[in-house]
Amino acid sequence: MSQDLGVITPQLLHVETPLNLTSGKVLPRYDLIYETYGELNADASNAILVCHALSGDHHVAGEDANGKIGWWNGYIGPGKPIDTNQFFVVCSNNLGGCSGSTGPASINPETNKVYGPDFPMVTCRDWVNSQNELRKHLGIDQWAALVGGSMGGMQVLQWAIDYPDKLRHALVIAAAPKLSAQNIAFNAVARSAIMSDPEFHEGRFIEKDSIPKQGLALARMLGHLTYLSDDMMGSKFGRELRQEELQYNYGPQFQVESYLSYQGEKFATKQNFDANTYLLMTKALDYFDPAAEFDHDLTKALAKATAKFLVVSFTTDWRFSPERSHEIVKALLDNDANVSYAEVESQHGHDAFLLPNEHYEGVFRAYMQKLTDELAVAPQDGEQE
Amino acid sequence: MSQDLGVITPQLLHVETPLNLTSGKVLPRYDLIYETYGELNADASNAILVCHALSGDHHVAGEDANGKIGWWNGYIGPGKPIDTNQFFVVCSNNLGGCSGSTGPASINPETNKVYGPDFPMVTCRDWVNSQNELRKHLGIDQWAALVGGSMGGMQVLQWAIDYPDKLRHALVIAAAPKLSAQNIAFNAVARSAIMSDPEFHEGRFIEKDSIPKQGLALARMLGHLTYLSDDMMGSKFGRELRQEELQYNYGPQFQVESYLSYQGEKFATKQNFDANTYLLMTKALDYFDPAAEFDHDLTKALAKATAKFLVVSFTTDWRFSPERSHEIVKALLDNDANVSYAEVESQHGHDAFLLPNEHYEGVFRAYMQKLTDELAVAPQDGEQE
Repeated sequence: MSQDLGVITPQLLHVETPLNLTSGKVLPRYDLIYETYGELNADASNAILVCHALSGDHHVAGEDANGKIGWWNGYIGPGKPIDTNQFFVVCSNNLGGCSGSTGPASINPETNKVYGPDFPMVTCRDWVNSQNELRKHLGIDQWAALVGGSMGGMQVLQWAIDYPDKLRHALVIAAAPKLSAQNIAFNAVARSAIMSDPEFHEGRFIEKDSIPKQGLALARMLGHLTYLSDDMMGSKFGRELRQEELQYNYGPQFQVESYLSYQGEKFATKQNFDANTYLLMTKALDYFDPAAEFDHDLTKALAKATAKFLVVSFTTDWRFSPERSHEIVKALLDNDANVSYAEVESQHGHDAFLLPNEHYEGVFRAYMQKLTDELAVAPQDGEQE
Repeated sequence: MSQDLGVITPQLLHVETPLNLTSGKVLPRYDLIYETYGELNADASNAILVCHALSGDHHVAGEDANGKIGWWNGYIGPGKPIDTNQFFVVCSNNLGGCSGSTGPASINPETNKVYGPDFPMVTCRDWVNSQNELRKHLGIDQWAALVGGSMGGMQVLQWAIDYPDKLRHALVIAAAPKLSAQNIAFNAVARSAIMSDPEFHEGRFIEKDSIPKQGLALARMLGHLTYLSDDMMGSKFGRELRQEELQYNYGPQFQVESYLSYQGEKFATKQNFDANTYLLMTKALDYFDPAAEFDHDLTKALAKATAKFLVVSFTTDWRFSPERSHEIVKALLDNDANVSYAEVESQHGHDAFLLPNEHYEGVFRAYMQKLTDELAVAPQDGEQE
């Protein structure tokens, strides 16, 4: 039961159906790269789509060809909370990403040049619509569950609103129903850092054979800072010095400085994250506000959602605090929806949703057991609910 | 009683006594620019030194020659909480600053070139030592009070520790006994933004006739973001749009984005803040940790302080939260010091210490009335306590 998933080969879906974007533009065709784990059952009733967060990708579990372990490998695999002996798990790189799905670093078929800044803005709803093409391609009428943390949780909410009959369960983790002004402000500073880097070349850095590394590194340092809690940084780094003595110069003096600097550097160089993708993802976050078209009433926005919900928040998450999850839970309860909620004690801030945690894992396992039980008793004719 | 201070002319003190800096370096001579308000009484017992914060300067009250109103004018003046009819108020620009005191933008007398990055690092203790020269110059044996918010509050703490017999009252507002790892991390990102700006030229931007505007603007945007509370940004900006419609492009879309962008731009261009000064001030903040040399025990550090204290914090300040003020208050109480503490309800985050607030003003006035009463009954022979 506890063997690993082994090496996973990503797959590519070419979608030829034009995608009508929220912005009014149309993407005539696009690729989605994705991975799957476990086996789809006979009536395709055991499929789970995992939606990734800002800097995530389709490689959520197992090992890739380079030996890299998936970003949520601790929670997905044989015998793990999302048990691949029971479920067929799917994860795709978001449209506009830079890990294999069509995005700003892809070739624009109309010009045969890299899209760069000409890649159209996509929104959370556009992601959901593109993921719906993947659903159809895989022959899945209804997802057993949609699962996502942070920006991934927002996609789960959007699925529950836009395609209520296409999912039975919605797991919304460390998310919010919309960004606050402060959230937007942090994104704006990160974007300014990228766009003011002379190597950005107004988004045409690939054509210029350059990378806005400094801007990307700054954006990542800042992002990373907001994923960690003050408590966690305090207990991990305190005011520990890099050298034994205070140096009284402008180099990194404290451990936390070199840690952040390393995170920024890694993101901008080794991980080679596309700067335009970073802009696009943060903008999609800013724009996310499903209640807006329902008189800014989240209860109304979720009125037609029929999925059962698990909402999880973490005590020291100040990016999307427990209060933001409460908003979601309240709106669901207003609609008499079936909702479970857990506020998990953790010192790890927003990052907690990716990390081992006994309570979190217990909640996750217990909820997933409910899904396994449902599968066992469900009629095998595709009518699940 | 309520007339204004009118136009204030700054004064310059040339100090020829070499300053032995914490770093081990020596500053052979330096200038301090300062302003004074009100009249020093016969026995020089009514003097109050105001210490400024990161981006502040010596112009704390009244109008300058350009009509600019001081940064704390609401609290200092005739009939105001720090009543210039009663007190002689002094405020100097910190050493290493860029408003007239010797700093990185000054001429290095040894080379006849701008100091730039060669200006030695100064610490909070160095500031206090330089301010002590100003005290002697003004013929003041003992300050009636030291007053400061944020970084200013740290200087007040340092005064109370290093020169216990040179002040009777210490007003420590929205401060902390040292920076947390998160505080340091924010400073580190701001410094990275400045230092990675190609216009920074390793600190020699003045020689190169350039200004690292983008880096400064980013640093300021980020700093500003941490001075405001999430609540305040929410109620001030919410998710209000700049235009009526969502634009789906990378320009500023929400009000909060243009606000922050304006703040950054103003700081970097109109205010013309020196980038090396910004680095130096944030480093001095990082280094501030008076307990370090007392076995990291703040109680021990404050054991010799004889001043009476007023400590003030603000409920939504997440840069230096009320808990950080509690640390100071507890250490003072451990020493059976005379301490008053107020936790002021405000939605304005760290910025609250600069803004009008009825409770804050009430606390401030009540405490200052105590000082006025002390002056009235004190013997006029210089023996105040």
